[in-house]
Amino acid sequence: MPVESPYPLVSIDHALNTILAHSPLLDEETVPLEEALGRVLCQDVVAAMPVPPFPASAKDGYAIIADDPSPVRKLVGEQTAGRVGDLRVVPGTAVQIMTGAAIPEGADAVVMIEYTSRRDDEVIIEQKVPVGNEIRPVGQDIEQGQKVLDRGTTLGPAEIGLLAAVGLDRAPVYRQPRVALFSTGDELCEPGQPLAPGQIYDSNRFSLAAAVTQSGGIPHTIGVVDDTPQALEQALAEALEVGDVVLTSGGVSMGKLDLLKPLLEAHGRVHFGRVVMKPGKPVTFATVGETPVFALPGFPVSALVSFELFVRPALRHMQGDPAWRRPRLHVKLAHALHHDAHRTEYQRAAIEVREGEFYARTTGYQGSGRLLSMVGAHALLELPPGDDYLPAGATVTAILLQPIGTL
Amino acid sequence: MPVESPYPLVSIDHALNTILAHSPLLDEETVPLEEALGRVLCQDVVAAMPVPPFPASAKDGYAIIADDPSPVRKLVGEQTAGRVGDLRVVPGTAVQIMTGAAIPEGADAVVMIEYTSRRDDEVIIEQKVPVGNEIRPVGQDIEQGQKVLDRGTTLGPAEIGLLAAVGLDRAPVYRQPRVALFSTGDELCEPGQPLAPGQIYDSNRFSLAAAVTQSGGIPHTIGVVDDTPQALEQALAEALEVGDVVLTSGGVSMGKLDLLKPLLEAHGRVHFGRVVMKPGKPVTFATVGETPVFALPGFPVSALVSFELFVRPALRHMQGDPAWRRPRLHVKLAHALHHDAHRTEYQRAAIEVREGEFYARTTGYQGSGRLLSMVGAHALLELPPGDDYLPAGATVTAILLQPIGTL
Repeated sequence: MPVESPYPLVSIDHALNTILAHSPLLDEETVPLEEALGRVLCQDVVAAMPVPPFPASAKDGYAIIADDPSPVRKLVGEQTAGRVGDLRVVPGTAVQIMTGAAIPEGADAVVMIEYTSRRDDEVIIEQKVPVGNEIRPVGQDIEQGQKVLDRGTTLGPAEIGLLAAVGLDRAPVYRQPRVALFSTGDELCEPGQPLAPGQIYDSNRFSLAAAVTQSGGIPHTIGVVDDTPQALEQALAEALEVGDVVLTSGGVSMGKLDLLKPLLEAHGRVHFGRVVMKPGKPVTFATVGETPVFALPGFPVSALVSFELFVRPALRHMQGDPAWRRPRLHVKLAHALHHDAHRTEYQRAAIEVREGEFYARTTGYQGSGRLLSMVGAHALLELPPGDDYLPAGATVTAILLQPIGTL
Repeated sequence: MPVESPYPLVSIDHALNTILAHSPLLDEETVPLEEALGRVLCQDVVAAMPVPPFPASAKDGYAIIADDPSPVRKLVGEQTAGRVGDLRVVPGTAVQIMTGAAIPEGADAVVMIEYTSRRDDEVIIEQKVPVGNEIRPVGQDIEQGQKVLDRGTTLGPAEIGLLAAVGLDRAPVYRQPRVALFSTGDELCEPGQPLAPGQIYDSNRFSLAAAVTQSGGIPHTIGVVDDTPQALEQALAEALEVGDVVLTSGGVSMGKLDLLKPLLEAHGRVHFGRVVMKPGKPVTFATVGETPVFALPGFPVSALVSFELFVRPALRHMQGDPAWRRPRLHVKLAHALHHDAHRTEYQRAAIEVREGEFYARTTGYQGSGRLLSMVGAHALLELPPGDDYLPAGATVTAILLQPIGTL
């Protein structure tokens, strides 16, 4: 009787929904603004005060009364930013003022320095300006009580600046997932060491750790683990102790030493063990207690593609990012291609532009061991099963891994 | 006589070319793969050995002689990955083999376990396979001597995996620029402290530090510096000591306390002091010795837009990234807009999609103090001078700050 996997093949949607249902939102913390880049807000942010908090000059120039008829004003002082004096502008006078300085009492406009000239202690206004000219009113940028950022916002430079602008020195964010990862396989050699016969270098631990970092997680590397039940059991125990998520590669195929699934069955629950996709069919998802465990296939491309489809969404989701899904685009094929007729295949492609349209060109031989097929790839092409041939010019869905321009 | 800036207005292209000419490539270093994410290769990488380095099984199954006529083979042992025995396949026999294991001598094909059944120490081959079936030949993924990565490649997860796969445990990369930064202005208060009258919170130091990090640089924060020649001189000296690049904000306008330009003139060379753009017109670029110094305007949006246009390209260029330019796209305007008739204006916009086309919608009031106009912006719209009005549907250039999908 032929050997069959006991795990039913599940759909990609089913797999992803199962994963998201078991990827709990992490708890909240506050971090200094200096460490907030890329973090996700766990609260709406409301401005406690208006910005600017006082009427401020938008330019370097002179604070005046706009309707004062005389072009010549006597200078009664200067107002620099951050220094509030008791200056007062009355008809016939002006106060020299710097960008950002508070408008002195009595003044109702600022005339830019470029439209003036100086004669001793007098200034000549060479261009009439309206009331309010170059004055930034209270709350022009941000009103008091205004919601400036939504919970779930990923913090970039502008958002971090905005937190500082409303007076916060720390950001309320979701914690980053700690991801404990190890590679399995007696054939794996550490890079930098000489290869013994039958060995290859472990690459997944390094590529997956980088992918974890890129997804906002904190990788905790356990190393290469031998294909023995004892070693795997010990590594899993260590991983569960330190990780919010456990990530492994290798050992989920159908071989005698594919010991991970039985181990996960013994300690927790395997939600699925095979997905109708290529590469990545043996991708396995389990929970041990509440901890999500991803056991990815060992081939380097299979590991990265299944990370991209399943682990990255989970890590973003756990950090509270509503935009955990990569942007997608319809593109045309630059050339005909063959693909799997029975499983959704993810081929790696560079996107090029012709006459304003996006064309995808696959990155050479798409073998699941060939990491080179991921290098220079702007996108994964999602090729649903069915007819195994697509002609040049056919429209397919591209999952964007980086921004694409046409100019 | 009206007051005029002594600095001629230069074009954006002139400004950028000047900056690139004075942004020297940094020196080289090697870093462990764990720290290589986002770094730029300073050398081509050539594979010293083929991958796989031996003929390897692509699947779990049995190593056989393909043309052996008998469907029943006697099992003579098993070959697991990483363990090389002295097994030999002769007619009438098979070796059980795991994914990644070396093909034993004599075998010329692998039959997947799914297409076999077992009877004691015999295996029944239920599907005939051709010579070479499921065998990954030497060099299938990478040939010995093949160039696998180009100098100038920014290292992502796949590229880091590839370095490991060819046995490297360190990556040869360009050094990251250390960017010393300070904000100037007596009106600036530290976030987290109470505001005194006439004060606002310093936001640029935080937004610019995040932008430096996002550009691959290492921010070194000096703090808020008072508007006095002594304080500025001291801050500049400290910045020049620690930084490959110096970055300041504020103090470059036309006010009495805009002391940075004279200070830079005294110590080095100011290449330009005004650019025909909005926001960001007073952006100033100098060199002191060989060190590039960017003195950005103080308004928060002006600072970030001029960072994006001038500092980010310099920082990427210094790290050896040939793709220092952001991707650009033609988009249509979702609504009519007014813009500056005399300077190239950069308005912040969200990109939306209608019927497969990209439309840009600006992010509300575009004041140069209003950081909120950068929040949620996917792109900067580049609006050249000329007619100051563009109707809905007009095509403009968008500089993409993040990936945009349509699906």
